[in-house]
Amino acid sequence: MSGSQNHKPQKPQSPGLLARQPRGFADRGPADIAATERMLAHIREVYTLYGFDALETPFIEYTDALGKFLPDQDRPNEGVFSFQDDDEQWLSLRYDLTAPLARHVAENYDTLPKPFRSYRAGWVFRNEKPGPGRFRQFMQFDADTVGAPSVSADAEICMMAADTLEKVGIARGDYAVKINNRKVLDGVLEAIGLSDDAHAARRLVVLRAIDKLDRLGAEGVALLLGEGRKDESGDFTKGAGLDADQIARVLAFTQARGTDAASTLANLEKVVEGSARGIEGVAELREIAALVAAAGYDDGRVQIDPAVVRGLEYYTGPVYEAELTFTIAGDDGQPVRFGSVAGGGRYDGLVARFRGEAVPATGFSIGVSRLLAALKIIDSPIARDTDHVGPVVVLVLDRGEIAHYHGLVSRLRGAGIRAELYLGGAGMRAQMKYADRRNSPCVVIQGSDERAQGTVQIKDLVAGAEQADAARELDNAAYKAQRLAQFSVPEADLVEAVRGVLGARQG
Amino acid sequence: MSGSQNHKPQKPQSPGLLARQPRGFADRGPADIAATERMLAHIREVYTLYGFDALETPFIEYTDALGKFLPDQDRPNEGVFSFQDDDEQWLSLRYDLTAPLARHVAENYDTLPKPFRSYRAGWVFRNEKPGPGRFRQFMQFDADTVGAPSVSADAEICMMAADTLEKVGIARGDYAVKINNRKVLDGVLEAIGLSDDAHAARRLVVLRAIDKLDRLGAEGVALLLGEGRKDESGDFTKGAGLDADQIARVLAFTQARGTDAASTLANLEKVVEGSARGIEGVAELREIAALVAAAGYDDGRVQIDPAVVRGLEYYTGPVYEAELTFTIAGDDGQPVRFGSVAGGGRYDGLVARFRGEAVPATGFSIGVSRLLAALKIIDSPIARDTDHVGPVVVLVLDRGEIAHYHGLVSRLRGAGIRAELYLGGAGMRAQMKYADRRNSPCVVIQGSDERAQGTVQIKDLVAGAEQADAARELDNAAYKAQRLAQFSVPEADLVEAVRGVLGARQG
Repeated sequence: MSGSQNHKPQKPQSPGLLARQPRGFADRGPADIAATERMLAHIREVYTLYGFDALETPFIEYTDALGKFLPDQDRPNEGVFSFQDDDEQWLSLRYDLTAPLARHVAENYDTLPKPFRSYRAGWVFRNEKPGPGRFRQFMQFDADTVGAPSVSADAEICMMAADTLEKVGIARGDYAVKINNRKVLDGVLEAIGLSDDAHAARRLVVLRAIDKLDRLGAEGVALLLGEGRKDESGDFTKGAGLDADQIARVLAFTQARGTDAASTLANLEKVVEGSARGIEGVAELREIAALVAAAGYDDGRVQIDPAVVRGLEYYTGPVYEAELTFTIAGDDGQPVRFGSVAGGGRYDGLVARFRGEAVPATGFSIGVSRLLAALKIIDSPIARDTDHVGPVVVLVLDRGEIAHYHGLVSRLRGAGIRAELYLGGAGMRAQMKYADRRNSPCVVIQGSDERAQGTVQIKDLVAGAEQADAARELDNAAYKAQRLAQFSVPEADLVEAVRGVLGARQG
Repeated sequence: MSGSQNHKPQKPQSPGLLARQPRGFADRGPADIAATERMLAHIREVYTLYGFDALETPFIEYTDALGKFLPDQDRPNEGVFSFQDDDEQWLSLRYDLTAPLARHVAENYDTLPKPFRSYRAGWVFRNEKPGPGRFRQFMQFDADTVGAPSVSADAEICMMAADTLEKVGIARGDYAVKINNRKVLDGVLEAIGLSDDAHAARRLVVLRAIDKLDRLGAEGVALLLGEGRKDESGDFTKGAGLDADQIARVLAFTQARGTDAASTLANLEKVVEGSARGIEGVAELREIAALVAAAGYDDGRVQIDPAVVRGLEYYTGPVYEAELTFTIAGDDGQPVRFGSVAGGGRYDGLVARFRGEAVPATGFSIGVSRLLAALKIIDSPIARDTDHVGPVVVLVLDRGEIAHYHGLVSRLRGAGIRAELYLGGAGMRAQMKYADRRNSPCVVIQGSDERAQGTVQIKDLVAGAEQADAARELDNAAYKAQRLAQFSVPEADLVEAVRGVLGARQG
């Protein structure tokens, strides 16, 4: 998932296979792994505080158990990696962490505490065309409350989302958790005559059009609500075929946001006039707004925003999205808002697919690599590659003494110092280069002279590099400086001397 | 991977889909996830100390990049989950963490430090018949050194394996890291005329026969080396077709272990007499034994044992296995040794598949759930479910006051106390039952009376349960005891009072 991975095509190495990865997959190195782990630990801490428990489901599920609820996925056999089992039943790699949760809850319904709060972090897979920053394997971190019918559960998750963003280092004012309600949109669709079953497909097109508001603006969305839209590449996307009045009504809904929650709610009430479902949706938003205000999160952390709809079909009530509001340079150099890093909503129908009765559920999902990218941009300590200090390297000058060198390394490790023996076949120069690449703080050198004297040489690579930098202009000084950063100690003092170098480096 | 998961068939829930998992897959709950994470953290600490860096490869690779190097997998299209990409190239889920490492090294050969030490923890997938304790998705934790031709690298990994087992709580004397060398076996095969290419398949049968020594004993292995063996279920496994002299020679090799390393090595020298490759193998073992002795690991922690061969075809030199030697009750109630939890060896040919030149590599793999099972048996603190304290539950007695209850929960969380609001629709009794299932240390109760008085009731569930237990025999005392564990405090003192209960519980 790291952007720093090497994706340029490799020259074929002959003879044999080409070493390559399928498109949309990437290896991850130690800095990326450590930063992700630190971020996940912070998120876990907040979720645990809120009473959520860890849960893991496997990577593979029956295809029919997952269903097909992918955003932007109109063709039935796309989006997921699927294969047949021995008994010819279809299996799929999970494409999100919500569908497997619904299966887990349905399977264990009688034994689970209800409401059931769980969090799940894990890799998911999409069989889609990869692109820059768009992978076919990526990590999500979800939290869900199942069995809580009241919008209290939605409000709680939105406030938890705010706490989580602050916990990982996003400053208050640099983010907003925005809430809307799918029932309000349903009310609008009812008002324009799209509420019956025959219009299910068009409703989905409307949904996905609105979801692009941030990216395309009202004008682009209007095209997608109408006849359709041709993008910069010339590709034409067919629209929902609404007429001008209908388009105006939908856009009025998305732009119903007022100066505060009260005015937004008043605007929405007008938009859904005459639709019972729409009125119910606005009432729910009003209840959420009250809870948010009572807890003090109405200072901008959690907001009612009718522009948020989410592209997924299965939402049945409140929907929410966590947006980072600070700007970064866009593709054209102009500042653009960083945008969404997490989103979710209420999906009371997913568990019902198995149980035949509605089971209320609400939850949200963080895009892990996207949030980590944001932390890198704001230079959060979580994302900084600070703790990746390389090992002390013990050089091998005399291969006949390898058992003795092993002993030196062992003593360092026994003292809790990260250390390794050079295990390649190369000479002194290559070994120093190796230590440099390993980001080693110092190397330990013992040739036959030192061995005879019972001493070791310790070369401080950090001090050496700094002195060499400072002395670069002086005649021959660089060499002398490097010598200064090297000193001899009795072998018995090895651990203490290395500790001294490491301490100086940290200090 | 948890044995405690519910696998009994579910009654069909009508109408709708059956909520079920494909065979060989399992959900994991919080205790299992936390124990695994603690164990992995301990292992990581040792690997980091030894200079190994974290690396992750994706779950999906080109099928041809993975190759087919599965143990016990004689049919070419079995063992892996595979599917075709859009461009009709075959993709597979990784079945181990070694083949993807070989691909990674070959792809990034020029930019990697060499030797390259890495560790990788992750899920792997086998498309095999699942059984008790045998899953189709399981976790491995690997460490490998690539680019180090000398057996120093093998010795280092074996000593690291010993350190790792002790770090997770296996006592010295309760485990052994056993080393052998595939070259010695090659020497034996040469001596009995099986060394040429035409006998590759038979060599593999010999290998896998020896690998079953622990389970089947010399007699069972002799059958598999000869005509074949019928197991208890009546299934017949075809043997390698060796004659009596050949079988005797192979068995002599596996039983060449003497009273110490020196006698074992002397025995092996006799077994490989006349085979240059065999002699080279014994010399390597001698070098490893010297390194192990110099580091003091020859006290039984690391041993030379010719009975270890490993079932994988791709090993080219030293092979090693970490065995737990304490006994558990076997299927028939008789004590059996716990057995292997990790294994590995040198595989100088795997990277060569891509690069056309041999790249030396050695590494080993821990079976994560198997090691965790061992830790549970010895009751290691790592595997104990100690830190899973449930949240404080704030009950909801008056739904009109929900915003106020949210505020109480918020104050607890603000003080770092794990807390949640009851979000279901049920009454007092069900809410208490919920708190009990959540393993909650106490609940916070505020009805309209308390609200009017500005107080809250705190009910200590742990003390209450203890007192109820103690008073079970007394008339009506249980009810009184439960009352004693409940007390009233001003709402302003909520946090302090809950802290008092939590502190008493911990103390």
